[in-house]
Amino acid sequence: MHNKELQILCYGKNLSKYDVAIDGITINKITKTENPNYLFITIDTKGMKAGTVSINFKEKGEVVLSQPYEFKIRKENSAKRKGFDSSDVMYLIMPDRFANGDSSNDSHKNTTEKVNRSNPGGRHGGDIKGIIDHLSYLKDLGVTALWSTPLLEDNEPAYSYHTYAQSDLYRIDPRYGTNNDYRRLASEMHKLDMKLIMDYVTNHWGSKHWMIQDLPTKDWIHQWPEGFKRSNYRMTTQFDKNASQVDRKGCMDGWFDTTMPDMNQSNPLLLKYIIQNAIWWIEYADLDGFRVDTYSYNDKKAIAKWTKAIMEEYPNFNIVGEVWMHNQSQIAYWQKDSKIGAIDHYNSYLPSVMDFTLHDAIIEMFKEDKSEWSKGMIKAYDNFTNDFLYPDSNNILVFAGNHDTNRINEIYQENSNVYKMVMTLICTTRGIPQLYYGDEIGMLGNRDKNGDGDIRKDFPGGWIEDSKNAFLSSEIKNGRTINQEEYHSFTKKILNWRKNKPSVHKGKLLQFIPFDNVYVYFRYDDKESVMVIINNSLKDQKLDVARFKEGIKNYSVGTDIITDSNIDITEDFSVPAKTSMILDLK
Amino acid sequence: MHNKELQILCYGKNLSKYDVAIDGITINKITKTENPNYLFITIDTKGMKAGTVSINFKEKGEVVLSQPYEFKIRKENSAKRKGFDSSDVMYLIMPDRFANGDSSNDSHKNTTEKVNRSNPGGRHGGDIKGIIDHLSYLKDLGVTALWSTPLLEDNEPAYSYHTYAQSDLYRIDPRYGTNNDYRRLASEMHKLDMKLIMDYVTNHWGSKHWMIQDLPTKDWIHQWPEGFKRSNYRMTTQFDKNASQVDRKGCMDGWFDTTMPDMNQSNPLLLKYIIQNAIWWIEYADLDGFRVDTYSYNDKKAIAKWTKAIMEEYPNFNIVGEVWMHNQSQIAYWQKDSKIGAIDHYNSYLPSVMDFTLHDAIIEMFKEDKSEWSKGMIKAYDNFTNDFLYPDSNNILVFAGNHDTNRINEIYQENSNVYKMVMTLICTTRGIPQLYYGDEIGMLGNRDKNGDGDIRKDFPGGWIEDSKNAFLSSEIKNGRTINQEEYHSFTKKILNWRKNKPSVHKGKLLQFIPFDNVYVYFRYDDKESVMVIINNSLKDQKLDVARFKEGIKNYSVGTDIITDSNIDITEDFSVPAKTSMILDLK
Repeated sequence: MHNKELQILCYGKNLSKYDVAIDGITINKITKTENPNYLFITIDTKGMKAGTVSINFKEKGEVVLSQPYEFKIRKENSAKRKGFDSSDVMYLIMPDRFANGDSSNDSHKNTTEKVNRSNPGGRHGGDIKGIIDHLSYLKDLGVTALWSTPLLEDNEPAYSYHTYAQSDLYRIDPRYGTNNDYRRLASEMHKLDMKLIMDYVTNHWGSKHWMIQDLPTKDWIHQWPEGFKRSNYRMTTQFDKNASQVDRKGCMDGWFDTTMPDMNQSNPLLLKYIIQNAIWWIEYADLDGFRVDTYSYNDKKAIAKWTKAIMEEYPNFNIVGEVWMHNQSQIAYWQKDSKIGAIDHYNSYLPSVMDFTLHDAIIEMFKEDKSEWSKGMIKAYDNFTNDFLYPDSNNILVFAGNHDTNRINEIYQENSNVYKMVMTLICTTRGIPQLYYGDEIGMLGNRDKNGDGDIRKDFPGGWIEDSKNAFLSSEIKNGRTINQEEYHSFTKKILNWRKNKPSVHKGKLLQFIPFDNVYVYFRYDDKESVMVIINNSLKDQKLDVARFKEGIKNYSVGTDIITDSNIDITEDFSVPAKTSMILDLK
Repeated sequence: MHNKELQILCYGKNLSKYDVAIDGITINKITKTENPNYLFITIDTKGMKAGTVSINFKEKGEVVLSQPYEFKIRKENSAKRKGFDSSDVMYLIMPDRFANGDSSNDSHKNTTEKVNRSNPGGRHGGDIKGIIDHLSYLKDLGVTALWSTPLLEDNEPAYSYHTYAQSDLYRIDPRYGTNNDYRRLASEMHKLDMKLIMDYVTNHWGSKHWMIQDLPTKDWIHQWPEGFKRSNYRMTTQFDKNASQVDRKGCMDGWFDTTMPDMNQSNPLLLKYIIQNAIWWIEYADLDGFRVDTYSYNDKKAIAKWTKAIMEEYPNFNIVGEVWMHNQSQIAYWQKDSKIGAIDHYNSYLPSVMDFTLHDAIIEMFKEDKSEWSKGMIKAYDNFTNDFLYPDSNNILVFAGNHDTNRINEIYQENSNVYKMVMTLICTTRGIPQLYYGDEIGMLGNRDKNGDGDIRKDFPGGWIEDSKNAFLSSEIKNGRTINQEEYHSFTKKILNWRKNKPSVHKGKLLQFIPFDNVYVYFRYDDKESVMVIINNSLKDQKLDVARFKEGIKNYSVGTDIITDSNIDITEDFSVPAKTSMILDLK
């Protein structure tokens, strides 16, 4: 490893009173805390060989307990692993709600909450095997990377299905499967040339985590005199030079929710624990990336150290952080080597962020049919005018929704024309497209009205008892409806086309001011060009091709990648109302 | 002068055919253009003494024309003049609409448009003498700096009253008075310890400018094949890395309006002309600052050179540029030494910008009575969370309106409670407060509904024939109404208090997250503290003083600067609904 220092946490009743030795290994440091049940051993692994050693606990010179500890051989070139990037299309699932591959683990003796599919906030039984069983569906759809919301054990008595209140950072929740199942998921995906991204939660653990139940140090979590204290959620306090300390602390140290004690990452023992845990999962499961939950709620300096430590081990890895803000400069602040962060002497080392301002635009602009100064397609255009604020505007997730937002098809009232325009934008602009499971079959969900469960419904067909199976084509009995097929076939077409489009992966973006609610842009590199037109107006619109000469260059024909028909682009041509068009230029 | 090089423009029928010599002066360069009527002489003024020289135009060795040219003695310490700053309160007037001090110049033989007070878009007769006559009114109100919209000659046949289409950059419009009158305005203001700020227009001249009528070079202005071409006004094209060249050019080189040819400041002869003209006015009229119109529509590089050249001559001067954008990072881009500008390798050298995002917030937030995540006072708070983006957030104009916006008292439907909250914010937050004439007597105006004339009405009492005179106290017959007096007396109280408050001029801002639509902040330095509370909710609100300990420190009493009453701030105290409070802490 790049960092040779290893911290081994030992836990047991009054363990700290023993002396410790490890055969053949020099211990650099032993750290004891105010809790006698903990003992942290720091060793230097330089020059160490694979094998099992014994950690010996002694009293008066006598070994009273001996614990084997194994050092495994690393996968070849593990440090060089390549993370997800803008050549990928990322598919986000909630594993409890995707597919139930093994009904025997729907409930488990070691975890409190039992399956209850009729409860929108309960456990429904989805699992890792369910995902593995449907990898061919995802592959066929054109997905290349999978982000699953957390799979580690969450032993809360209720609402554990979202799994963001984790009770063991080294164990897959038994209702999803075993650690080995997770590893198998990665391996099966790699066989299909797909990538696996783990949803990592640094900001908080679950209230049932064994270390929360028996804190190593009082400052392991952020304690408040009143017990639970909710975060004020004002992330701007983290860079506002006018902010009060009480508000800064109230944001960063307040708890995200009642069952989620807020971790104090500035405690070096904890920081090391979560760095090592993250690295362990990369190595164990052979991961291709992290998505980090609530990134900007962490201790700012500590989360930068965490991120830097991981990126130093894996320089080609990728980590995308959730920075849910509504202003490009505020989001850009958190991306690695940000010039805006630098104003505040901050560098997060986080390679990738999420384009929440584009999401803000997407959920409004397609309702705005008329041409106005700052409405309709101008909102998309305006978003990209700020790209210069990002250190790397191509390493940014673009999406129309996720597990915390109203579903795009709900917002646009089952209008498949809008879905197609949205997907066109998401899949052809700069950045990494991210889809939310079920959007490709037009699933609905309104969290504001019906709660979180409504945007996290079961994928139809993921359960053996389901009467309809949307994993299957509409041509198959009980497969997708004609309506679902319309969404699916468009998605499949565009995703599979995108796979082999370097100009869309890494090319430049050239955009033109939208007039009459028609947005035209190009993605291009030295070898190819793609022209995209989104007509969000209520009228068919004739394109003045002379205006787009910079993008059209000497190309004369555009092949519509959905219909495969050719268009003469040397003359003005028409784009129907509420329609998008992707043209491969020739 | 810091820059010793002087460019003398000579104009006359076929003048360029003559040889030129100046007695006792070495000419560095003579530049001729494609127009034979122009001749540009460049000399080095190093070591030059005051006095008059002759510029001799020769043909075949014979002097055929001799033009005297005077070099004047500079005012002592002219280069060290101090510009306006955050200790000032700036008052913006439109001179045609403020006061008519000399009815003999309402129309003038040399200018086309004649007076017609009944036309909202016509000339009403206001003039420099009218301003001078009312300096004591402004002084009494607490104003310390005056920004008048342009006073240079604008010989358009219609709408010349706004005077942004200038026809001579060296002459005060005769309907406002003479050059000497303008100089006298500055001198009278300086006697009263007030500052004069000139509204300088670099981006465009009027169609009737003599040089526009006989262009020195074709590229003196931005020419378009179609003749007039309106700017697309998308200033984001100036930094958008994805922007097309056609859109960039369409913004920068498009014309602001039909009567305003867009100047090509990248022409070095023109650039030098407007630099020297600006400097000439500073020296001639003894100015304290510039406000630069449509700053971000100019040629980006050239306007930076213009700004730098002036600031190099007067390092303590101040220039505020109009950058009417709606995003702090986009406005901050244009401020001197911007780290955001630097991303794009740009430095404008412009010391001051305008807080248009705060204006955006002000015109909405006081309508939002309820407590919501991003509404009401949160909008003010949020604006200041981005202060770190500005290189100097204290050198920024804060305002509730100007000559291009709906009047604040119109927006809030003559609600004087709102006016008081607005003025509290404007006058106590960081930056330079800027008032718009007439707001202090609650004037109304809606440009969206009734056109520009409606927000630029005559100040009542500025014309001898006016039946009411709002320059006079309500205690005087035909003076201010009781309602006008309420606005005026509040404004006068707060402005005069502000004059002697270094903590409000230069102190730090400490702000707290608004809860229940109550915004609390402090301005403080080592010696004093001011606590400001704006309760924008519909309920009286009790302040939890413990939460504001960082600001309250060990102070125990707050003196309400409006009522002069004392409040015990060691205990929670009440602030009435829709009310603000400014407390001097003791």
